[in-house]
Amino acid sequence: MTPEEFRRYGHQAIDWVADYLAHPERYPVLPSVTPGQLTDALPACGPERGESMDAILADFERLIVPATTHWNHPGFMAYFATSGSPAGVLGELLTAALNGNGMLWKTSPAITELEQVTLRWLRQWTGLPDDWFGVTYDTASTASMHAIAAAREAADPGARTRGAAPGLVVYTSEQSHSSIEKGAMAVGMGQDHVRKVPVDAEFRMRPDALAELIERDLARGLRPCCVTATVGTTSTTSVDPVPAIADICERHALWLHVDAAYAGSAAVAPEFRWALAGCERADSLVTNPHKWLMTPVDCSVFYTRRPEILRRAFSLVPEYLTTKDDPRALNLMDYGVPLGHRFRALKLWFVMRSFGREGLAALIREHVRLAQDLAREIDGDPRFERTAPTPFSVVCFRYKGSDEENRRIQDRVNATGDIFLSGTVLNGRFTLRLAIGNQATTAAHVARAWELVRAQVA
Amino acid sequence: MTPEEFRRYGHQAIDWVADYLAHPERYPVLPSVTPGQLTDALPACGPERGESMDAILADFERLIVPATTHWNHPGFMAYFATSGSPAGVLGELLTAALNGNGMLWKTSPAITELEQVTLRWLRQWTGLPDDWFGVTYDTASTASMHAIAAAREAADPGARTRGAAPGLVVYTSEQSHSSIEKGAMAVGMGQDHVRKVPVDAEFRMRPDALAELIERDLARGLRPCCVTATVGTTSTTSVDPVPAIADICERHALWLHVDAAYAGSAAVAPEFRWALAGCERADSLVTNPHKWLMTPVDCSVFYTRRPEILRRAFSLVPEYLTTKDDPRALNLMDYGVPLGHRFRALKLWFVMRSFGREGLAALIREHVRLAQDLAREIDGDPRFERTAPTPFSVVCFRYKGSDEENRRIQDRVNATGDIFLSGTVLNGRFTLRLAIGNQATTAAHVARAWELVRAQVA
Repeated sequence: MTPEEFRRYGHQAIDWVADYLAHPERYPVLPSVTPGQLTDALPACGPERGESMDAILADFERLIVPATTHWNHPGFMAYFATSGSPAGVLGELLTAALNGNGMLWKTSPAITELEQVTLRWLRQWTGLPDDWFGVTYDTASTASMHAIAAAREAADPGARTRGAAPGLVVYTSEQSHSSIEKGAMAVGMGQDHVRKVPVDAEFRMRPDALAELIERDLARGLRPCCVTATVGTTSTTSVDPVPAIADICERHALWLHVDAAYAGSAAVAPEFRWALAGCERADSLVTNPHKWLMTPVDCSVFYTRRPEILRRAFSLVPEYLTTKDDPRALNLMDYGVPLGHRFRALKLWFVMRSFGREGLAALIREHVRLAQDLAREIDGDPRFERTAPTPFSVVCFRYKGSDEENRRIQDRVNATGDIFLSGTVLNGRFTLRLAIGNQATTAAHVARAWELVRAQVA
Repeated sequence: MTPEEFRRYGHQAIDWVADYLAHPERYPVLPSVTPGQLTDALPACGPERGESMDAILADFERLIVPATTHWNHPGFMAYFATSGSPAGVLGELLTAALNGNGMLWKTSPAITELEQVTLRWLRQWTGLPDDWFGVTYDTASTASMHAIAAAREAADPGARTRGAAPGLVVYTSEQSHSSIEKGAMAVGMGQDHVRKVPVDAEFRMRPDALAELIERDLARGLRPCCVTATVGTTSTTSVDPVPAIADICERHALWLHVDAAYAGSAAVAPEFRWALAGCERADSLVTNPHKWLMTPVDCSVFYTRRPEILRRAFSLVPEYLTTKDDPRALNLMDYGVPLGHRFRALKLWFVMRSFGREGLAALIREHVRLAQDLAREIDGDPRFERTAPTPFSVVCFRYKGSDEENRRIQDRVNATGDIFLSGTVLNGRFTLRLAIGNQATTAAHVARAWELVRAQVA
């Protein structure tokens, strides 16, 4: 494709995107395809000769779009709803065009420095300590794995050289994200050395239970190493009591990692700053602009106040990547497993500037308001019960009936194509989850969801 | 930004990209900025209120572009030169617009299935076994870490539960990429348990030395676990003798991982299929379409013939992500650390269809031809010597003088802004590396590079 052809097809693609974003409800939120249907519709072999972009774009619309779950649909209320935002899409377009790789400062000063600048802005907007170090990864799962590896290196200097010492233990709540357990598996600590600390009635880690588990492990000769607290758990968005957990970590010199992948973003609105209380005492924290800050996937931000430990765990400079030392020329490859480093900061910069802090705070505030209005509606309907508090924009609730009835409600609502709800299990019972996080979601969409849920139990 | 504003600014951005791709030499390949310069030019705090996209795009051109190392410049001949290609950029634009997350089949059937389809096409184009399983990650480093974790699980079933057993050993050549050692560090095996197998005069792993190291470790009671062979090493693009290595792996039941991040792509041209000889006997292999297959970063492809082991090492399904079982509904989250999964296959599909196999093969063929023509030129100049064979598109050579003189040549060439060369160390001596991989690079650019190098020793 020549640059002039790129211009023509680029304008065509932009027009498609503009129409798509203007009418995000044109397609059902969940596609009506069965597993294997798209595969069967595509050729079993790739083409020998190049095809026209007209044909490719036509197939995109004809085959790919109808097999897509539309995260842009305002009725997407499953998991954590997200928006890429138009500004973020433009940033990603330019990132793809520049196609840089920020492994070293020298391989793209802009990638390295704009990342540091935007991550400083984000620290300021969320009230995190200004002197923390930040780096982006693809996902919060990857970030948390790096936190656990850094904790391992801190507890057992030289682990990178000798290998993981047996008996290092990670603590996290029963409600924490699966990525914590997976991270411990990946770095060689093993699931047997992940303690799931019990939670209180509001799904928050119990510091007394944490302290007890640590004491028990110490008595058995094990080596407590890392505690992961969650600010905004995946099931209920509960917030662990970080100040009390930090006390315990300090007492035992444990690495405190905070998974604020979802709710960290909320702190751009001052009234939600409480959620990060105590986090300034953490050793590391992850928050995902690609979740609730209108940034296209992927953009997960990892902060640590101990970058030298992260670096000690991961830095490895082969001959073909040696550079002259300059204290201001950071080499991002020193801070993790991936050598290549996308220009994720460009889209984040576009989003932060395009919305401003106030713009992002207003969106988050509105999402929480919508969720809390719905929570009141649910509380007013005797057939339903909320199954967890609603501190942010996720509402957990259930029909006062069997799990099977609740699953049927979910399936039927999702089958409409208007709304996509997910579920979870709380206290052994299946519960519905309604998550608001899409830029286009309004009170009308939430009302529609609630109407559809109630219609199933008429 | 409204969809109509997106349309307007989108067209503007597309026009900028079209001009940029039409004139990739408009900017010097290496920017003339000093560390911290961009940081100092940007505000210390993010904006409270949203700013206009006019201002943001203007700052992009005024501040970001001049601080960018232009991987699109045809004179970019450092590391491994890459091209995103116009088709790939369009694919990435649409990926950002859809903003899906393919963690589960259900969260985007198109992400899951198109990835499987394109990865099957790529297996066919490169002659890899049709029944292998494929999945994408962000980088080859991440892919190789997953290979090592799978090898650990294969050697020590239950490692995910109990933690990494001490004494598991990974073997790789002295010339392998740093990501292998880093992967072993990350998964808790430790650098002490990474053996750097000596290479022959052409920088290929010596199977006799591998066999000897394995025997020695067995005699010491250690547990050989994984061998990583490289097809296209980073310094010289040497190809390890995979068939002989596979023999040894089979004898000792070791996991054989092949790092074909660079040269795997070459196999789309039949005359380079030899490079993957024996790889059909590997347990896993990584190749990077974002290196030499004109696909924007990130797109690293990981294949394994033992997906059940990879899955055993990493699968973990929390309540909030349970789905109904369907044998054709693959859940990509089961195959690695990252939960989130970008729609990387869309750009790969655009590239594969837009170029066709022949189109990609023609580009690769031309890059190799340019490199080998240069190799002959160098061989004809008594002041220079090649320091490694040139099987693909990377030429290693040096001025027959001191390391210091060669480093000075590199610095002076790079200071022109026309050409960017990197270097490495071979047999203890600094050597220049000239890598051809950019779609826009022609004989004239290679001639210019060679002219600039010679001009420094006049």
